[in-house]
Amino acid sequence: MSDKIRIGIAGYGNLGRGVEAALAQHTDMELVGVFTRRNPAELRLLSDGTPVYRINSVATFTETIDVLILCGGSKNDLPEQGPELSALFNTVDSFDTHARIPDYFAAMDRAAQQGGHIALISVGWDPGLFSINRLYGEAVLPDGANYSFWGPGLSQGHSDALRRVPGVQGAVQYTIPSPEAMERVRSGSRPALTTREKHTRSCYVVLEAGADAATVERAIVTMPDYFADYDTTVNFISAEELQRDHAAMPHGGCVIRGGTTGKGTRQMMEFSLQLDSNPEFTASVLVAYARAAFRLNQQGDSGAKTVFDIPPGLLSPKSAAELRRELL
Amino acid sequence: MSDKIRIGIAGYGNLGRGVEAALAQHTDMELVGVFTRRNPAELRLLSDGTPVYRINSVATFTETIDVLILCGGSKNDLPEQGPELSALFNTVDSFDTHARIPDYFAAMDRAAQQGGHIALISVGWDPGLFSINRLYGEAVLPDGANYSFWGPGLSQGHSDALRRVPGVQGAVQYTIPSPEAMERVRSGSRPALTTREKHTRSCYVVLEAGADAATVERAIVTMPDYFADYDTTVNFISAEELQRDHAAMPHGGCVIRGGTTGKGTRQMMEFSLQLDSNPEFTASVLVAYARAAFRLNQQGDSGAKTVFDIPPGLLSPKSAAELRRELL
Repeated sequence: MSDKIRIGIAGYGNLGRGVEAALAQHTDMELVGVFTRRNPAELRLLSDGTPVYRINSVATFTETIDVLILCGGSKNDLPEQGPELSALFNTVDSFDTHARIPDYFAAMDRAAQQGGHIALISVGWDPGLFSINRLYGEAVLPDGANYSFWGPGLSQGHSDALRRVPGVQGAVQYTIPSPEAMERVRSGSRPALTTREKHTRSCYVVLEAGADAATVERAIVTMPDYFADYDTTVNFISAEELQRDHAAMPHGGCVIRGGTTGKGTRQMMEFSLQLDSNPEFTASVLVAYARAAFRLNQQGDSGAKTVFDIPPGLLSPKSAAELRRELL
Repeated sequence: MSDKIRIGIAGYGNLGRGVEAALAQHTDMELVGVFTRRNPAELRLLSDGTPVYRINSVATFTETIDVLILCGGSKNDLPEQGPELSALFNTVDSFDTHARIPDYFAAMDRAAQQGGHIALISVGWDPGLFSINRLYGEAVLPDGANYSFWGPGLSQGHSDALRRVPGVQGAVQYTIPSPEAMERVRSGSRPALTTREKHTRSCYVVLEAGADAATVERAIVTMPDYFADYDTTVNFISAEELQRDHAAMPHGGCVIRGGTTGKGTRQMMEFSLQLDSNPEFTASVLVAYARAAFRLNQQGDSGAKTVFDIPPGLLSPKSAAELRRELL
């Protein structure tokens, strides 16, 4: 019997592939299998050796999987799958629909409590590592202000919004933080920044045959919620250029806490990420937190949790004594 | 009876004063008093209302103090005071003598376990927030390398070393990270950096009357451990200039994790601090962790802990539900 932490992957898009890749970097974990709604024979896996099963067979794996990493989307997959699976397994997911986190947490908590499992939700970098840094900033410097900047990076949600515009055949959108706004924040002045001042949006769009560029551009830059509140540029490119130059998924950003202590002393905390692949990094965070979920459950704990509930030490394969000696 | 967390301060140097100032920013905490080895009448407090007591009376406060924040030095004060006080109180300290952390942890653990208290050691920014970021980096990106840079900032230990050089009347030392080295790390190349390549040291020295500048300079730049391995510059200044231009205690630095995921995808994490007052910021971290120590003890836990053992959520006065709603 293995003494490694036995991991299952539910859902095999970019995130699931990222988890498969990340697991290969952790010697204390092993991948039991990938679970998919698709025909297993049709999946192109990173590693030939990875077993693939239909998701509806997952309930037969409750004795052989320690943590199931949920790699479905927040919009349709997780709200339905999440509670079902957390009744059966310890789970980790990257649920990121902000307004629905309280409801999702409650549903996951009920299911996980009943099953005696841990359901660790909203893990990744935002929500996730960025959230932790917002919390550290606020707790350490209560007289201060938090600023989150995203990008430069490809936003999946805004790219999807572009693709829904009539006349658009393909598109990607990059979110670009304003260097001036970041400088003002770092200077310690605690500026009040409008949405427009913080980020700009840059779109690369392939038109459908016969579509009118000016009409498409107007539809984009005036789209409420997504683009109307930003300075948005639209660049029209060919399908070949889209494929060749815009297939990567870089992202990143920073959380800055500017605060004062004593008699107006300025203090600045900043956490930043520069990611050549957003899904691979998010997957890497999920895998580290899968270790924590397993350990927490081994300690007898159950129910829904977030990154705020997880002691940093549980993320590392090292013992507490090793961590104190090597990293403190 | 107060429902605030009742805090005592043991030791009233720069750090103790910083804690006194920080507590005024937290509405869920109150300062019971400052405990000192000096004559209480001689202490110049930040706030007139703060009670001052002799440290040898502290044992009579076990029912009225929830957490005692230990603000003594790591060299002489904490190794002796720490275990005595953690037998009586929940404690938080900033013990930072790296090589002695395992011994100190063991001594604090014994005392705190016996008393049923929490002894939260080595809290601040390094050790402390930097340590947490080294851990997050290593856990999330196991194929990678950690880099810690310190400064630009005033190093207390190196300033003390300067003051021990014969012929030196007063001095401060600034540690300056190399911009080139930081750029190489941020570029993702994972360079092997020598001590000399990472930081330079800049000294401001006031000579004693009759001392020979060249002799003093040579004694400094060749001093083993402290300066010999660095490019060190020595600037001679007047006592007035030292007083006027070098009384502040700025510091900061960054922890960078460069790693790869998937097939060589570069990922970069960075945590940085820019502090106009090192002791005031360290004090602010101590106060946030005092809240966590209190809560952990309320949950029935006891023994020595480090920042690695503390769930981020325990640092915040907000409830778990509020944190999920506002910061996740």
